[in-house]
Amino acid sequence: MLMPSKAVLLVHGGAGVIRREQMSRVAEQRFITKLGDSLKAGHKVLMSGGTSLDAVVAAVKVLEDSPLFNAGKGAVLTQDRRIELDAAIMDGATLKAGAVGCITNVKNPITAARAVMDHTKHVMLIGKGADVFFRKGAKSYGLTVVEPDYFVTSRRVKQLEEALEREAGSNGNRSKTLKRGAKTIKSIGFDENKFGTVGAVALDPAGNLAAATSTGGITAKRYGRLGDSPLIGSGTYADNASCAVSCTGHGEYFIRHVVSHDIAARMKYLSESVSQAADYVVHTLLRNAGGEGGLIALDRHGNLAMPFNTEGMFRGAITKDGDVCVSIYGD
Amino acid sequence: MLMPSKAVLLVHGGAGVIRREQMSRVAEQRFITKLGDSLKAGHKVLMSGGTSLDAVVAAVKVLEDSPLFNAGKGAVLTQDRRIELDAAIMDGATLKAGAVGCITNVKNPITAARAVMDHTKHVMLIGKGADVFFRKGAKSYGLTVVEPDYFVTSRRVKQLEEALEREAGSNGNRSKTLKRGAKTIKSIGFDENKFGTVGAVALDPAGNLAAATSTGGITAKRYGRLGDSPLIGSGTYADNASCAVSCTGHGEYFIRHVVSHDIAARMKYLSESVSQAADYVVHTLLRNAGGEGGLIALDRHGNLAMPFNTEGMFRGAITKDGDVCVSIYGD
Repeated sequence: MLMPSKAVLLVHGGAGVIRREQMSRVAEQRFITKLGDSLKAGHKVLMSGGTSLDAVVAAVKVLEDSPLFNAGKGAVLTQDRRIELDAAIMDGATLKAGAVGCITNVKNPITAARAVMDHTKHVMLIGKGADVFFRKGAKSYGLTVVEPDYFVTSRRVKQLEEALEREAGSNGNRSKTLKRGAKTIKSIGFDENKFGTVGAVALDPAGNLAAATSTGGITAKRYGRLGDSPLIGSGTYADNASCAVSCTGHGEYFIRHVVSHDIAARMKYLSESVSQAADYVVHTLLRNAGGEGGLIALDRHGNLAMPFNTEGMFRGAITKDGDVCVSIYGD
Repeated sequence: MLMPSKAVLLVHGGAGVIRREQMSRVAEQRFITKLGDSLKAGHKVLMSGGTSLDAVVAAVKVLEDSPLFNAGKGAVLTQDRRIELDAAIMDGATLKAGAVGCITNVKNPITAARAVMDHTKHVMLIGKGADVFFRKGAKSYGLTVVEPDYFVTSRRVKQLEEALEREAGSNGNRSKTLKRGAKTIKSIGFDENKFGTVGAVALDPAGNLAAATSTGGITAKRYGRLGDSPLIGSGTYADNASCAVSCTGHGEYFIRHVVSHDIAARMKYLSESVSQAADYVVHTLLRNAGGEGGLIALDRHGNLAMPFNTEGMFRGAITKDGDVCVSIYGD
């Protein structure tokens, strides 16, 4: 077994319609800076002897704390103006995992997912019951509990209002709907309503992989919809025997194709490289099915893949050679 | 592609500590009769031109309607005496899937999962939002809505009280706890607190596979715990290219190992038979990890596997040769 001499960390901040000509230089720079901050936070943990689990939590926290991304502060709103946050984490060394769905009161949902992994016998806690658990145990588990208002930003309120107007419009005034839709995309540079999930995968110097994903779901979502992010094997997976994966995109397709576990399975059973497996799943399997999105994947030797079948994906990497790279578009 | 000339249907009603010497003849007969009824209901659908999806719904409904199993009526209670039901269904022909978590008001949760698949863009709806969706749409989706009281049986209330007493005891009087624990197992023939999930997999004459699973989770569960049953790829999966699988057991292990998708992946990528793949996952992978349980699995040619690493699993099959078989123990 080859042991990596250095640590590797990848992060993403969502994939979707991101057009260079529609995004201002200032907006671009904001995203790039924050992805860089996330990489730095995670890498610092790895360089100071922290595990890959600690690193993915540190990296994801930075993105959750930023209102730019659809996770933690600045997450999208549900149809009835509420916040429902999902997250998952997995330890490639032990296959232990923790996940939360539709929680509303932990400042960093990824730390809530880790608390489920570290402090319960369970893998997944959801809804009101999970809220109660985290409120009660906040002190013991080192969680920062906040009121749901903490997560709400004026940008997301506006976005929800536009989405609801479009929805109302689609039952009546079609042309107004389309115009509004187009305006929304143009004004912010990309279609924020669907995407913006964040995630990280890491390899620590001990050779252990970890994966983490956090999201607010889809703008104007209703009826307790759960996407792929908190589902182990779909949006999040890590196994030292294959790879660590965190996904972003149209969740339903990632669930049906059990995307992150499928990449792991192709590596284990077909002896594909992480690039071969990830590229096939994103560019062939998901594309043929109509599933838009992307993912970050990393194997135990520090080989990585960051494929997406959308116009762009907010992403960054610190490779095994120490190279730092942050990108948005497909070129 | 070989097309089966006949339909195949498998059902299960949970795996766990089921000891012949502790189970009365009368109790045994009740389980066997009900599993037979479930098989008959599903098989009738297949024989009258219904799809495998229709058949697994029909078979699971019979088990949900019976208070014997931990699904639908007779499901276990949460710590605060509530009912929270999970279910999932998947169509092997299209990979479309539907799932529900922690719902409380649909008489047959498997029909709620199917409504998510058939009538929404989503795969998974959970909690209060899902309850609202089903209550509003009951008529359109052909769902029978009930009050949560419908599901509660005196047997499960007693079981919860015993579980809570044991839990209280484990913080104080250890010997009393053990005695009570032992008595509980003996009095009912098997450890009902953990297991009793139901499920079905079917192959229809058109060669399409489907899988369905339904459960009440674990007695005295709390904090919105979600097990593997409603998670696509973990407790439930179907793909015509490999197999249909429904699992039962210690859910957390089935989630970490993405059990049902792993069986599908081993068949697709390692060219294992359904028996080889299912046996490996249950008897080697899960057993080594300490994950107790079992599953039913079926491929497109009507080959089947029903492995379990517990003392027993309530199970039944109508094979491609028309043989009908219902069993409880390992022999």
